[in-house]
Amino acid sequence: VEGEEEIGSPSLAPFLNEHRDMLAADIIAISDSPQYGPEFPAIVYGLRGLTYVEFHVQAARGDLHSGLFGGGVANAVNVLATALGKLIDDDGHVTIPGFYDDVLPLEDWERDNYAAIPFDGKAFFASIGAKGPHGEAGYSTLERITARPTLDVNGIWGGYQGEGSKTIVPAEAGAKVSMRLVPNQDPHRIAEAIHKHVVDLLPDSVDCTVTEHAHAEPVLVPAHSDFMKAAQRAIAAGFGRDPLLLRGGGSIPIVSDFKRILELDTLLVGFGQPDDALHSPNERFRLVDFHHGCLAAAHLLDELASKD
Amino acid sequence: VEGEEEIGSPSLAPFLNEHRDMLAADIIAISDSPQYGPEFPAIVYGLRGLTYVEFHVQAARGDLHSGLFGGGVANAVNVLATALGKLIDDDGHVTIPGFYDDVLPLEDWERDNYAAIPFDGKAFFASIGAKGPHGEAGYSTLERITARPTLDVNGIWGGYQGEGSKTIVPAEAGAKVSMRLVPNQDPHRIAEAIHKHVVDLLPDSVDCTVTEHAHAEPVLVPAHSDFMKAAQRAIAAGFGRDPLLLRGGGSIPIVSDFKRILELDTLLVGFGQPDDALHSPNERFRLVDFHHGCLAAAHLLDELASKD
Repeated sequence: VEGEEEIGSPSLAPFLNEHRDMLAADIIAISDSPQYGPEFPAIVYGLRGLTYVEFHVQAARGDLHSGLFGGGVANAVNVLATALGKLIDDDGHVTIPGFYDDVLPLEDWERDNYAAIPFDGKAFFASIGAKGPHGEAGYSTLERITARPTLDVNGIWGGYQGEGSKTIVPAEAGAKVSMRLVPNQDPHRIAEAIHKHVVDLLPDSVDCTVTEHAHAEPVLVPAHSDFMKAAQRAIAAGFGRDPLLLRGGGSIPIVSDFKRILELDTLLVGFGQPDDALHSPNERFRLVDFHHGCLAAAHLLDELASKD
Repeated sequence: VEGEEEIGSPSLAPFLNEHRDMLAADIIAISDSPQYGPEFPAIVYGLRGLTYVEFHVQAARGDLHSGLFGGGVANAVNVLATALGKLIDDDGHVTIPGFYDDVLPLEDWERDNYAAIPFDGKAFFASIGAKGPHGEAGYSTLERITARPTLDVNGIWGGYQGEGSKTIVPAEAGAKVSMRLVPNQDPHRIAEAIHKHVVDLLPDSVDCTVTEHAHAEPVLVPAHSDFMKAAQRAIAAGFGRDPLLLRGGGSIPIVSDFKRILELDTLLVGFGQPDDALHSPNERFRLVDFHHGCLAAAHLLDELASKD
């Protein structure tokens, strides 16, 4: 039982380091990944990593009257928006130098696998109230949200945000920016790269401070190992259907800790649904998934116990 | 006495229209412009106009988990920042099609006049805590802040603005954008132009609504008329120094109402200092300027009365 996941599991890695012998194992199983949907159990063999940084731009001591100063001084919001706007090009590619250098391309079997998954784009976008696809040219929506790196401004602020109008040149602006990473991108190298790139894109007339919030390694588990085959059989037995093989778009940082410290791969066999509203009001777990999941978990223990 | 200036003087234009005969005059004098500085009285012969619009981008029904959706859906903040970032190019020029079409170029005497004004850039930027000049290539700081049109994002917001990190794809983002205009730019045409341009710059995957907040006409008063000469003599008598001729960077919308409805020019003979903290805490008016201003106003009445 590890109760610190939502704060980055600060105690877990030291614990793993101190107790390698006690924790010796063949494989690790975690139930923290979703099914593909109702009637579509899944095993996740890849996870995205994360780098999360925050920028703060200061252009003057305080906000300035735009009639008296506008045009002759740097506007913190203008210059930050301009810099952030240049981080993604018109084709949806991230422009940070070196960003894609270490990205492992999707293999042919993976792209075939993605293409075979019954993805209903219309229903997907309707479910979130979006008008349609948006993202990196050359990839499907499923590939974009699970197997390709991203850059999202998670929040931005600066100047006057109230009702009506206020004619100021904002002195300060800030933004939080996170990037979902894929194997083998290094979260710390990517953090350095975006830091340097944004500062390069800003004019000399402003100061910029950068805070790093979080880093998580991307993960790729061998998709065709004997352990994976055992997990596939266990889920088929529990759910009455063969599981899909998927990559997941989120991050589970302890998976890379297990790999790095214990040298163990992880089977990501989770039983929730994508629309269970994780971390949101009215989060749920369907009873039918609970029952099938119990069966699958029992079968998994049996499969792994009989493996050698 | 007109007490509605700060809310856009909604009653004044109808009053002018109804009482043209009663208001018949030779010239109008307004004291709402600054001196250039202590020991530098000034007459303002130009004012910038204003167009103020607000954009609201909606990309989805609510914020989305960046691990589950990031990369495959439009991020409201990313796309708005990208669009806003494209409104000014690397040379500080506004990129909105037609933006400069109606701009009256500065005349040679004006540029000579600007060059002769004792402007201390180092002190100017130090006084506001800015690192140095920033703006449109080819123009001095004084020209940029008084005689050239601008585009300032006055405020921006979207996504998570609190402490720490939250890995969301923001569904909504907004920004307030104002442009200071110069003769003969039309505030309504410019509002239309930026509206169309921003919508063009946004992807089809998002919706954008636009609100117009305010419009003010730019103003240029004949700088070499007999009235202007009378005002110059009056200020020289009141302050003991010849006034500088300046354009002002702010807007006084009633000046264009007086011109349009009463067909009268306005002498902008104000006595405050640029650092009097207009509209701010600790606003002031120096006693020395009050006394000199009283004298100058009396001389101005005398000069104008004896004019013909």
